[in-house]
Amino acid sequence: MAKVNEHYLKLKAGYLFPEIGRRVAAFQQANPAAQVIRLGIGDVTRPLVPAVVDAMRAAVDEMGTPAGFRGYGPEQGYDFLIDAIRENDYAARGVDVARDEVFVSDGSKCDSGNIQEIFALDNVVALTDPVYPVYLDTNVMAGRTGEAGADGRYAGVVYMPATAENDFRPAPPTERVDLVYLCSPNNPTGAASSRADLERWVAYARSSGAILLFDAAYEAYITDPAVPHSIFEIPGARDVAIEFRSFSKTAGFTGTRCAFTVVPKGVTARAPGGDVVSLNALWNRRHTTKFNGVSYPIQRAAAAVYTPEGRRQTRDIVAFYLENAALIRAGLAAAGFAVYGGVNAPYIWLRTPRGLSSWQFFDRLLGEAHVVGTPGSGFGPSGEGYFRLSAFNSRENVEEAIARIRRVAW
Amino acid sequence: MAKVNEHYLKLKAGYLFPEIGRRVAAFQQANPAAQVIRLGIGDVTRPLVPAVVDAMRAAVDEMGTPAGFRGYGPEQGYDFLIDAIRENDYAARGVDVARDEVFVSDGSKCDSGNIQEIFALDNVVALTDPVYPVYLDTNVMAGRTGEAGADGRYAGVVYMPATAENDFRPAPPTERVDLVYLCSPNNPTGAASSRADLERWVAYARSSGAILLFDAAYEAYITDPAVPHSIFEIPGARDVAIEFRSFSKTAGFTGTRCAFTVVPKGVTARAPGGDVVSLNALWNRRHTTKFNGVSYPIQRAAAAVYTPEGRRQTRDIVAFYLENAALIRAGLAAAGFAVYGGVNAPYIWLRTPRGLSSWQFFDRLLGEAHVVGTPGSGFGPSGEGYFRLSAFNSRENVEEAIARIRRVAW
Repeated sequence: MAKVNEHYLKLKAGYLFPEIGRRVAAFQQANPAAQVIRLGIGDVTRPLVPAVVDAMRAAVDEMGTPAGFRGYGPEQGYDFLIDAIRENDYAARGVDVARDEVFVSDGSKCDSGNIQEIFALDNVVALTDPVYPVYLDTNVMAGRTGEAGADGRYAGVVYMPATAENDFRPAPPTERVDLVYLCSPNNPTGAASSRADLERWVAYARSSGAILLFDAAYEAYITDPAVPHSIFEIPGARDVAIEFRSFSKTAGFTGTRCAFTVVPKGVTARAPGGDVVSLNALWNRRHTTKFNGVSYPIQRAAAAVYTPEGRRQTRDIVAFYLENAALIRAGLAAAGFAVYGGVNAPYIWLRTPRGLSSWQFFDRLLGEAHVVGTPGSGFGPSGEGYFRLSAFNSRENVEEAIARIRRVAW
Repeated sequence: MAKVNEHYLKLKAGYLFPEIGRRVAAFQQANPAAQVIRLGIGDVTRPLVPAVVDAMRAAVDEMGTPAGFRGYGPEQGYDFLIDAIRENDYAARGVDVARDEVFVSDGSKCDSGNIQEIFALDNVVALTDPVYPVYLDTNVMAGRTGEAGADGRYAGVVYMPATAENDFRPAPPTERVDLVYLCSPNNPTGAASSRADLERWVAYARSSGAILLFDAAYEAYITDPAVPHSIFEIPGARDVAIEFRSFSKTAGFTGTRCAFTVVPKGVTARAPGGDVVSLNALWNRRHTTKFNGVSYPIQRAAAAVYTPEGRRQTRDIVAFYLENAALIRAGLAAAGFAVYGGVNAPYIWLRTPRGLSSWQFFDRLLGEAHVVGTPGSGFGPSGEGYFRLSAFNSRENVEEAIARIRRVAW
């Protein structure tokens, strides 16, 4: 009889968002008149901008004509989009990225989840704690970890706690690791790595032989000019880092689906015989074997983000969400909360008051303020006692949520 | 230092289509006046139908409005599309499929490549030979095979030759296997499995404990009313089969990207301790962890395929390609070729004349008729001496290609 991948059975059943959904549904059933405001899941709320809609509509029309129809495109993406990415996201910041180093995809969740496939199963993985769950779960599913312990940590994984005590910016591990997942600006903590932080990581990777898997999905939210937007702004990073970028939060593409990954040709890892192998070539093999390119109209829509109108329109929306973040941050600080993030990221990370657990705070926030957020413990053991609020909502809802939170006797 | 997935290094470098591209480019450079007709890659050529374009355009417009905007959707797909699939592809054929058994994705290449992840690495894989390379390559990459031998076959894989001698419909293997990839109508041979064939496979899987991975991407091309469109038309298949479907060839979505996989809740495999595990639950975990749903406008476009206008318009195009296939088949038969397929599939599979190898025939076809096709040996060792022509082109080009082929002194 066929056998299942036993590593899937190590995954803990209760994923964060289904449990949130269950508790919110139960609350709403018991309190049908309550107007619940959701600052939980990191999903955008503003519509696609006109430049994007116009470009996508034009591409849809093309697809209906004999001359404009496109069948299979390059799995790696069309040059018109790749060149726009190279020019605007990289060359404009002094970073040289070649065409065949960019891989357009349908999402950073997919890319950051799939990247581990090109590495051997006995590589040691290091993660910040708390962390975006996809990095961890995909390594569990691949068999790169042991079982989860009572503390919620999987055997064989190196956890790097990110807490207020280290300013949510953990130092490189002292034990040997091979793959390091970094996310800046960070989901969930909202912390952004400084240039010095990233220089330290690159130096660490260069000296230890580790690979940095750098998730920059939230780079559009960086307001501090000293914070790098790309790991490749750091000299030497092209030999040790892979970068993930997304249009999801930059341009409201969470339901439209487009992202990309940059794998410089200088990044290498070792084969069993000792040979040095290009990760660009391996990722290209993976991408062309298991993926068939992003829909043509979606690639046109993504390219429109880089036009003058597209840039202006999407920046206005990012600025709007960042104003929301500033309001949440200020409102909670005024209410006596210890708040973090929200300056270079759309997430506000707060300490729960008076030792409440993350889920205790969730229940009180929902029950007394009718506001939904995300328990920090859902992102890892070191997230216990923290809580994430997202800036993705209308101004009216954000202001109402803050007012309600301030009225609760915490 | 980080280590690469060594199994990737087992893959043979020369993938079929890059080599074809290289030879065609060299020919065109040497013969700039030659009008090359491409009947090689299986890519559609007719534009998206009006019903699809209209639905996609309307959904794009929705995405630009506050009321109509959609962020993250269900990873498994929207109910409006899932219900259209259930009703039209299954209920209409007497097959009951539940909502949570359908997983909408961006392509059957992805799904048929990713499905192996939910199975243990020590399962034995059986494949027809010749075969769609993705089934094999993704198992090589996962480490489910040994090295390739001089005959092009990977150690540990059970190959089931599909040749004229067995009517391209191999019998179930006699050795023990766990996972069987089947494709009907078949790429590349164009053969379609009869009901009796599929009944034999289902009975085999039920008695042996193997899982059938059934690729029905070309089901829209079935003209013989006795040929099942779904493996689930066979009683008992819901306990042993997973089915892949696509809009790529049905509705010209090769550049638009939408497909789906059906994993019935009755299909199970065994965990190491002996427990029986639902593959539906495992695939759901994989799909929700590594995928973030198909773009909303694309799902609306796919749903439009099932409207009365969408069905009529897409059927007309399939009928057009099938007429091309019939012309190619008849023209080559009249020229003395042994031809197969092309009746329930858009592919014509032919025997090369007078013992030419697949690549020798490719070179002569290109050099003397200026027609590009696909060497059968590129799909597996048993494809040697065969050749694939595709029906995806204009009528004019198809007729011209046939005329040219007939003028060559084979």
